[in-house]
Amino acid sequence: MTQVAIVTFDGFNELDSFGASTIINRCRKSGLDAWITTPTPTVTSMNGVQITGQRTMDFIAKADVVLIGSGVKTRDVVADDQILSMLTLSPSRQLIGAQCSGSLVLARLGLLGDMPVCTDVVTRPFVEACDVKVLDKPFHAVGSIATAGGCLASQYLAAWVILRTLGEEAVRSAFHYVAPVGEEDTTVAHVLDVIQSSTW
Amino acid sequence: MTQVAIVTFDGFNELDSFGASTIINRCRKSGLDAWITTPTPTVTSMNGVQITGQRTMDFIAKADVVLIGSGVKTRDVVADDQILSMLTLSPSRQLIGAQCSGSLVLARLGLLGDMPVCTDVVTRPFVEACDVKVLDKPFHAVGSIATAGGCLASQYLAAWVILRTLGEEAVRSAFHYVAPVGEEDTTVAHVLDVIQSSTW
Repeated sequence: MTQVAIVTFDGFNELDSFGASTIINRCRKSGLDAWITTPTPTVTSMNGVQITGQRTMDFIAKADVVLIGSGVKTRDVVADDQILSMLTLSPSRQLIGAQCSGSLVLARLGLLGDMPVCTDVVTRPFVEACDVKVLDKPFHAVGSIATAGGCLASQYLAAWVILRTLGEEAVRSAFHYVAPVGEEDTTVAHVLDVIQSSTW
Repeated sequence: MTQVAIVTFDGFNELDSFGASTIINRCRKSGLDAWITTPTPTVTSMNGVQITGQRTMDFIAKADVVLIGSGVKTRDVVADDQILSMLTLSPSRQLIGAQCSGSLVLARLGLLGDMPVCTDVVTRPFVEACDVKVLDKPFHAVGSIATAGGCLASQYLAAWVILRTLGEEAVRSAFHYVAPVGEEDTTVAHVLDVIQSSTW
Protein backbone atom coordinates (compact mmCIF):
# COMPACT_ATOMS: atom_id res chain seq x y z
CA MET A 1 0.00 0.00 0.00
CA THR A 2 1.09 3.56 -0.77
CA GLN A 3 1.00 5.38 2.57
CA VAL A 4 -0.25 8.97 2.72
CA ALA A 5 0.23 11.19 5.79
CA ILE A 6 -2.28 14.05 6.09
CA VAL A 7 -0.42 16.25 8.59
CA THR A 8 -3.03 17.96 10.75
CA PHE A 9 -2.22 20.53 13.43
CA ASP A 10 -4.27 22.03 16.24
CA GLY A 11 -6.63 24.67 14.83
CA PHE A 12 -6.90 22.76 11.53
CA ASN A 13 -9.43 23.56 8.80
CA GLU A 14 -11.66 20.50 8.42
CA LEU A 15 -12.29 21.03 4.69
CA ASP A 16 -8.56 21.05 4.03
CA SER A 17 -7.56 17.87 5.87
CA PHE A 18 -10.68 15.84 5.12
CA GLY A 19 -11.18 17.19 1.60
CA ALA A 20 -7.93 15.46 0.69
CA SER A 21 -8.05 12.38 2.94
CA THR A 22 -11.60 11.28 2.15
CA ILE A 23 -11.07 11.46 -1.61
CA ILE A 24 -7.69 9.71 -1.46
CA ASN A 25 -9.22 6.95 0.68
CA ARG A 26 -11.75 6.30 -2.10
CA CYS A 27 -8.70 4.57 -3.68
CA ARG A 28 -7.99 2.29 -0.70
CA LYS A 29 -8.88 -0.81 -2.70
CA SER A 30 -6.48 0.32 -5.41
CA GLY A 31 -3.60 0.73 -2.96
CA LEU A 32 -3.74 4.22 -1.39
CA ASP A 33 -4.08 4.63 2.38
CA ALA A 34 -4.43 8.14 3.86
CA TRP A 35 -4.10 8.76 7.59
CA ILE A 36 -4.68 11.85 9.72
CA THR A 37 -1.24 12.45 11.25
CA THR A 38 -0.99 14.68 14.33
CA PRO A 39 1.73 16.02 16.68
CA THR A 40 -0.42 15.29 19.76
CA PRO A 41 -2.84 12.38 20.43
CA THR A 42 -5.78 14.69 19.75
CA VAL A 43 -6.10 17.99 17.90
CA THR A 44 -9.02 20.42 17.83
CA SER A 45 -10.21 22.06 14.61
CA MET A 46 -10.70 25.79 14.04
CA ASN A 47 -14.39 25.16 14.70
CA GLY A 48 -13.84 23.25 17.94
CA VAL A 49 -14.12 19.65 16.69
CA GLN A 50 -11.70 17.38 18.56
CA ILE A 51 -10.31 14.47 16.57
CA THR A 52 -7.98 11.65 17.53
CA GLY A 53 -4.94 11.32 15.29
CA GLN A 54 -4.54 8.08 13.36
CA ARG A 55 -0.77 8.24 13.06
CA THR A 56 2.00 9.99 15.02
CA MET A 57 4.61 12.26 13.49
CA ASP A 58 7.05 9.30 13.15
CA PHE A 59 4.84 8.17 10.30
CA ILE A 60 5.87 11.15 8.16
CA ALA A 61 9.36 9.82 7.47
CA LYS A 62 7.92 6.43 6.45
CA ALA A 63 5.11 7.76 4.28
CA ASP A 64 5.26 7.79 0.48
CA VAL A 65 3.15 10.94 0.28
CA VAL A 66 2.91 13.79 2.81
CA LEU A 67 0.24 16.48 2.62
CA ILE A 68 0.52 19.43 5.03
CA GLY A 69 -2.95 20.62 6.04
CA SER A 70 -3.97 24.14 6.87
CA GLY A 71 -5.39 25.89 9.88
CA VAL A 72 -5.54 29.00 12.02
CA LYS A 73 -2.37 28.24 14.02
CA THR A 74 0.14 27.55 11.24
CA ARG A 75 2.17 30.62 12.19
CA ASP A 76 2.65 29.04 15.63
CA VAL A 77 3.68 25.78 13.93
CA VAL A 78 6.40 27.43 11.84
CA ALA A 79 7.71 29.20 14.96
CA ASP A 80 7.95 25.89 16.84
CA ASP A 81 11.33 24.24 16.19
CA GLN A 82 10.22 21.05 17.93
CA ILE A 83 7.28 20.55 15.56
CA LEU A 84 9.38 21.56 12.53
CA SER A 85 12.02 18.98 13.50
CA MET A 86 9.33 16.28 13.29
CA LEU A 87 8.63 17.19 9.66
CA THR A 88 11.33 15.09 8.07
CA LEU A 89 10.38 15.45 4.42
CA SER A 90 12.28 14.07 1.47
CA PRO A 91 11.27 15.47 -1.95
CA SER A 92 13.56 12.99 -3.69
CA ARG A 93 11.65 10.03 -2.26
CA GLN A 94 8.21 11.42 -1.36
CA LEU A 95 5.40 13.31 -3.02
CA ILE A 96 4.83 16.42 -0.90
CA GLY A 97 1.78 18.66 -0.98
CA ALA A 98 0.60 21.64 1.01
CA GLN A 99 -2.83 23.16 1.39
CA CYS A 100 -3.31 26.92 2.01
CA SER A 101 -1.21 27.82 5.08
CA GLY A 102 0.62 24.50 4.70
CA SER A 103 2.65 26.28 2.01
CA LEU A 104 4.15 28.42 4.75
CA VAL A 105 5.47 25.23 6.37
CA LEU A 106 7.17 24.18 3.12
CA ALA A 107 8.62 27.70 2.76
CA ARG A 108 9.93 27.66 6.33
CA LEU A 109 11.48 24.21 5.78
CA GLY A 110 13.32 25.61 2.74
CA LEU A 111 11.88 22.99 0.41
CA LEU A 112 10.56 25.30 -2.30
CA GLY A 113 13.72 26.64 -3.93
CA ASP A 114 12.53 29.12 -6.57
CA MET A 115 9.19 27.35 -7.05
CA PRO A 116 6.11 29.61 -6.75
CA VAL A 117 3.19 28.38 -4.63
CA CYS A 118 -0.53 28.59 -4.11
CA THR A 119 -1.95 29.58 -0.73
CA ASP A 120 -4.89 31.43 0.81
CA VAL A 121 -5.25 35.24 0.99
CA VAL A 122 -4.57 35.35 4.74
CA THR A 123 -1.33 33.35 4.50
CA ARG A 124 -0.11 35.05 1.32
CA PRO A 125 1.91 37.93 2.92
CA PHE A 126 3.65 35.51 5.32
CA VAL A 127 4.70 33.25 2.43
CA GLU A 128 5.85 36.27 0.42
CA ALA A 129 7.90 37.37 3.44
CA CYS A 130 9.87 34.10 2.97
CA ASP A 131 10.80 35.34 -0.55
CA VAL A 132 8.45 32.84 -2.16
CA LYS A 133 6.24 33.96 -5.05
CA VAL A 134 2.48 33.35 -4.64
CA LEU A 135 0.33 32.58 -7.70
CA ASP A 136 -3.30 33.65 -8.31
CA LYS A 137 -4.16 30.03 -9.01
CA PRO A 138 -5.74 27.13 -7.11
CA PHE A 139 -2.99 24.56 -7.79
CA HIS A 140 0.64 24.39 -8.87
CA ALA A 141 3.02 21.44 -8.93
CA VAL A 142 6.69 21.18 -9.82
CA GLY A 143 8.27 17.75 -9.72
CA SER A 144 7.40 16.08 -6.44
CA ILE A 145 5.98 19.19 -4.72
CA ALA A 146 2.46 20.58 -5.09
CA THR A 147 0.56 23.40 -3.38
CA ALA A 148 -3.11 24.37 -3.39
CA GLY A 149 -4.94 27.53 -2.34
CA GLY A 150 -8.56 27.90 -1.20
CA CYS A 151 -10.27 25.29 0.99
CA LEU A 152 -12.12 23.60 -1.88
CA ALA A 153 -8.83 23.24 -3.79
CA SER A 154 -7.98 20.36 -1.43
CA GLN A 155 -9.67 18.17 -4.03
CA TYR A 156 -6.93 19.15 -6.50
CA LEU A 157 -4.22 17.99 -4.09
CA ALA A 158 -6.08 14.70 -3.70
CA ALA A 159 -6.37 14.37 -7.48
CA TRP A 160 -2.67 15.07 -7.96
CA VAL A 161 -1.75 12.36 -5.43
CA ILE A 162 -4.03 9.85 -7.14
CA LEU A 163 -2.76 10.81 -10.62
CA ARG A 164 0.89 10.50 -9.60
CA THR A 165 0.48 7.19 -7.77
CA LEU A 166 -2.30 5.34 -9.61
CA GLY A 167 -2.86 7.23 -12.87
CA GLU A 168 -5.65 9.06 -14.67
CA GLU A 169 -8.25 6.27 -14.64
CA ALA A 170 -8.10 6.19 -10.83
CA VAL A 171 -8.69 9.97 -10.71
CA ARG A 172 -11.69 9.56 -13.00
CA SER A 173 -13.11 6.77 -10.85
CA ALA A 174 -12.64 8.55 -7.48
CA PHE A 175 -14.08 11.86 -8.69
CA HIS A 176 -16.95 10.21 -10.51
CA TYR A 177 -17.99 8.89 -7.13
CA VAL A 178 -17.48 11.99 -4.94
CA ALA A 179 -18.82 14.52 -7.49
CA PRO A 180 -22.27 16.01 -7.06
CA VAL A 181 -24.80 13.70 -8.75
CA GLY A 182 -25.32 14.79 -12.36
CA GLU A 183 -22.04 16.76 -12.36
CA GLU A 184 -19.73 13.74 -12.58
CA ASP A 185 -18.35 14.33 -16.07
CA THR A 186 -17.83 18.09 -15.65
CA THR A 187 -16.17 17.57 -12.26
CA VAL A 188 -13.77 14.93 -13.58
CA ALA A 189 -12.89 17.03 -16.64
CA HIS A 190 -12.35 20.19 -14.58
CA VAL A 191 -10.19 18.51 -11.93
CA LEU A 192 -8.00 16.82 -14.54
CA ASP A 193 -7.68 20.06 -16.51
CA VAL A 194 -6.62 22.06 -13.43
CA ILE A 195 -3.96 19.62 -12.29
CA GLN A 196 -2.63 18.65 -15.71
CA SER A 197 -2.32 22.27 -16.86
CA SER A 198 -0.49 23.25 -13.67
CA THR A 199 2.03 20.43 -13.31
CA TRP A 200 5.64 20.94 -14.38
CA MET B 1 -27.39 32.94 16.89
CA THR B 2 -29.05 30.55 14.44
CA GLN B 3 -28.14 27.07 15.67
CA VAL B 4 -27.30 24.35 13.14
CA ALA B 5 -27.07 20.65 14.09
CA ILE B 6 -24.92 18.55 11.75
CA VAL B 7 -26.15 15.08 12.73
CA THR B 8 -23.22 12.71 12.41
CA PHE B 9 -23.44 8.96 12.97
CA ASP B 10 -20.83 6.28 13.42
CA GLY B 11 -19.31 5.38 10.03
CA PHE B 12 -19.85 8.95 8.78
CA ASN B 13 -18.39 10.32 5.56
CA GLU B 14 -16.05 13.18 6.53
CA LEU B 15 -16.66 15.17 3.34
CA ASP B 16 -20.40 15.15 3.98
CA SER B 17 -20.42 16.33 7.59
CA PHE B 18 -17.47 18.72 7.38
CA GLY B 19 -18.24 19.94 3.85
CA ALA B 20 -21.39 21.49 5.28
CA SER B 21 -20.25 22.46 8.78
CA THR B 22 -17.01 24.20 7.83
CA ILE B 23 -18.67 26.36 5.17
CA ILE B 24 -21.63 27.24 7.42
CA ASN B 25 -19.22 28.19 10.21
CA ARG B 26 -17.61 30.72 7.85
CA CYS B 27 -20.78 32.70 8.74
CA ARG B 28 -20.31 32.52 12.51
CA LYS B 29 -19.71 36.26 12.77
CA SER B 30 -22.94 36.81 10.84
CA GLY B 31 -24.95 34.64 13.22
CA LEU B 32 -24.73 30.98 12.11
CA ASP B 33 -23.30 28.35 14.45
CA ALA B 34 -22.91 24.75 13.21
CA TRP B 35 -22.15 21.89 15.60
CA ILE B 36 -21.30 18.25 15.02
CA THR B 37 -24.14 16.43 16.78
CA THR B 38 -23.70 12.77 17.66
CA PRO B 39 -25.69 9.95 19.33
CA THR B 40 -22.63 8.82 21.34
CA PRO B 41 -19.83 10.90 22.91
CA THR B 42 -17.50 9.89 20.08
CA VAL B 43 -18.14 8.54 16.59
CA THR B 44 -15.68 7.05 14.12
CA SER B 45 -15.72 7.93 10.44
CA MET B 46 -15.85 5.46 7.54
CA ASN B 47 -12.08 5.95 7.28
CA GLY B 48 -11.40 5.32 10.96
CA VAL B 49 -11.11 8.91 12.24
CA GLN B 50 -12.56 9.22 15.75
CA ILE B 51 -14.17 12.55 16.56
CA THR B 52 -15.77 13.87 19.74
CA GLY B 53 -19.29 15.19 19.25
CA GLN B 54 -19.90 18.87 20.04
CA ARG B 55 -23.59 18.48 20.86
CA THR B 56 -25.79 15.59 22.04
CA MET B 57 -28.99 14.52 20.28
CA ASP B 58 -31.07 16.73 22.65
CA PHE B 59 -29.72 19.64 20.64
CA ILE B 60 -31.68 18.57 17.54
CA ALA B 61 -35.06 19.64 18.95
CA LYS B 62 -33.63 23.05 19.91
CA ALA B 63 -31.76 23.70 16.65
CA ASP B 64 -33.08 26.05 13.95
CA VAL B 65 -31.48 23.98 11.19
CA VAL B 66 -30.79 20.22 11.15
CA LEU B 67 -28.62 18.56 8.51
CA ILE B 68 -28.48 14.76 8.47
CA GLY B 69 -25.04 13.59 7.40
CA SER B 70 -24.21 10.47 5.46
CA GLY B 71 -22.15 7.40 6.11
CA VAL B 72 -21.68 3.70 5.65
CA LYS B 73 -23.98 2.65 8.51
CA THR B 74 -27.13 4.66 7.71
CA ARG B 75 -29.08 1.46 7.08
CA ASP B 76 -28.32 0.47 10.69
CA VAL B 77 -29.45 3.92 11.83
CA VAL B 78 -32.84 3.66 10.13
CA ALA B 79 -33.33 0.19 11.65
CA ASP B 80 -32.65 1.52 15.17
CA ASP B 81 -35.84 2.84 16.75
CA GLN B 82 -33.92 4.32 19.65
CA ILE B 83 -31.80 6.53 17.39
CA LEU B 84 -34.81 7.43 15.23
CA SER B 85 -36.73 8.50 18.34
CA MET B 86 -33.95 11.01 19.06
CA LEU B 87 -34.50 12.68 15.67
CA THR B 88 -37.32 14.98 16.68
CA LEU B 89 -37.56 17.10 13.53
CA SER B 90 -40.13 19.78 12.87
CA PRO B 91 -40.36 20.97 9.22
CA SER B 92 -42.78 23.71 10.22
CA ARG B 93 -40.21 25.31 12.51
CA GLN B 94 -36.83 24.06 11.27
CA LEU B 95 -34.88 23.96 8.03
CA ILE B 96 -34.04 20.31 7.43
CA GLY B 97 -31.43 18.98 5.05
CA ALA B 98 -30.04 15.56 4.23
CA GLN B 99 -26.84 14.53 2.51
CA CYS B 100 -26.62 11.30 0.46
CA SER B 101 -27.78 8.45 2.72
CA GLY B 102 -29.24 11.05 5.09
CA SER B 103 -32.18 11.13 2.66
CA LEU B 104 -32.99 7.58 3.75
CA VAL B 105 -33.39 8.87 7.31
CA LEU B 106 -35.89 11.53 6.16
CA ALA B 107 -37.76 8.89 4.14
CA ARG B 108 -37.91 6.52 7.11
CA LEU B 109 -39.17 9.36 9.36
CA GLY B 110 -41.99 9.98 6.86
CA LEU B 111 -41.04 13.63 6.40
CA LEU B 112 -40.86 13.68 2.60
CA GLY B 113 -44.51 13.32 1.55
CA ASP B 114 -44.47 13.18 -2.25
CA MET B 115 -41.26 15.23 -2.50
CA PRO B 116 -38.51 13.65 -4.65
CA VAL B 117 -34.97 13.59 -3.25
CA CYS B 118 -31.29 13.53 -4.13
CA THR B 119 -29.03 10.82 -2.77
CA ASP B 120 -25.99 8.76 -3.73
CA VAL B 121 -26.02 5.76 -6.08
CA VAL B 122 -25.52 3.24 -3.27
CA THR B 123 -28.42 4.57 -1.20
CA ARG B 124 -30.75 5.10 -4.18
CA PRO B 125 -32.47 1.67 -4.21
CA PHE B 126 -33.11 1.83 -0.45
CA VAL B 127 -34.76 5.25 -0.77
CA GLU B 128 -36.80 4.05 -3.76
CA ALA B 129 -37.94 1.07 -1.67
CA CYS B 130 -39.59 3.67 0.64
CA ASP B 131 -41.68 4.82 -2.38
CA VAL B 132 -39.65 8.02 -2.68
CA LYS B 133 -38.57 9.21 -6.12
CA VAL B 134 -34.83 9.86 -6.60
CA LEU B 135 -33.66 12.61 -8.97
CA ASP B 136 -30.54 12.59 -11.17
CA LYS B 137 -29.53 15.92 -9.67
CA PRO B 138 -27.14 17.13 -6.97
CA PHE B 139 -29.66 19.23 -5.00
CA HIS B 140 -33.41 19.63 -4.56
CA ALA B 141 -35.35 21.66 -2.01
CA VAL B 142 -39.06 22.00 -1.39
CA GLY B 143 -40.15 24.42 1.32
CA SER B 144 -38.14 23.74 4.45
CA ILE B 145 -36.61 20.43 3.31
CA ALA B 146 -33.53 19.99 1.09
CA THR B 147 -31.53 16.96 -0.02
CA ALA B 148 -28.18 16.63 -1.77
CA GLY B 149 -26.47 13.74 -3.57
CA GLY B 150 -22.75 13.13 -4.08
CA CYS B 151 -20.17 13.97 -1.39
CA LEU B 152 -19.11 17.28 -2.94
CA ALA B 153 -22.76 18.39 -3.09
CA SER B 154 -22.53 19.03 0.65
CA GLN B 155 -21.47 22.55 -0.34
CA TYR B 156 -24.93 23.04 -1.89
CA LEU B 157 -26.63 22.11 1.38
CA ALA B 158 -24.39 24.60 3.17
CA ALA B 159 -25.23 27.28 0.58
CA TRP B 160 -28.96 26.62 0.92
CA VAL B 161 -28.75 27.01 4.71
CA ILE B 162 -26.84 30.28 4.37
CA LEU B 163 -29.20 31.58 1.66
CA ARG B 164 -32.31 30.77 3.68
CA THR B 165 -31.00 32.22 6.95
CA LEU B 166 -28.73 35.12 5.95
CA GLY B 167 -29.40 35.77 2.25
CA GLU B 168 -27.50 35.80 -1.03
CA GLU B 169 -24.72 38.21 -0.06
CA ALA B 170 -23.70 35.86 2.77
CA VAL B 171 -23.52 32.94 0.31
CA ARG B 172 -21.33 35.03 -1.99
CA SER B 173 -19.03 35.99 0.87
CA ALA B 174 -18.66 32.46 2.30
CA PHE B 175 -18.02 30.82 -1.07
CA HIS B 176 -15.68 33.56 -2.22
CA TYR B 177 -13.51 32.57 0.72
CA VAL B 178 -13.69 28.75 0.50
CA ALA B 179 -13.47 28.55 -3.33
CA PRO B 180 -10.23 27.51 -5.00
CA VAL B 181 -8.10 30.63 -5.52
CA GLY B 182 -8.85 32.11 -8.96
CA GLU B 183 -12.16 30.21 -9.19
CA GLU B 184 -14.06 32.44 -6.75
CA ASP B 185 -16.50 34.00 -9.20
CA THR B 186 -17.28 30.80 -11.11
CA THR B 187 -17.77 28.89 -7.85
CA VAL B 188 -20.15 31.48 -6.40
CA ALA B 189 -22.14 31.68 -9.65
CA HIS B 190 -22.38 27.90 -9.99
CA VAL B 191 -23.43 27.28 -6.39
CA LEU B 192 -26.11 29.98 -6.52
CA ASP B 193 -27.36 28.68 -9.87
CA VAL B 194 -27.66 25.09 -8.59
CA ILE B 195 -29.57 25.95 -5.43
CA GLN B 196 -31.77 28.71 -6.88
CA SER B 197 -32.81 26.59 -9.87
CA SER B 198 -33.67 23.63 -7.63
CA THR B 199 -35.64 25.29 -4.84
CA TRP B 200 -39.45 25.15 -4.84
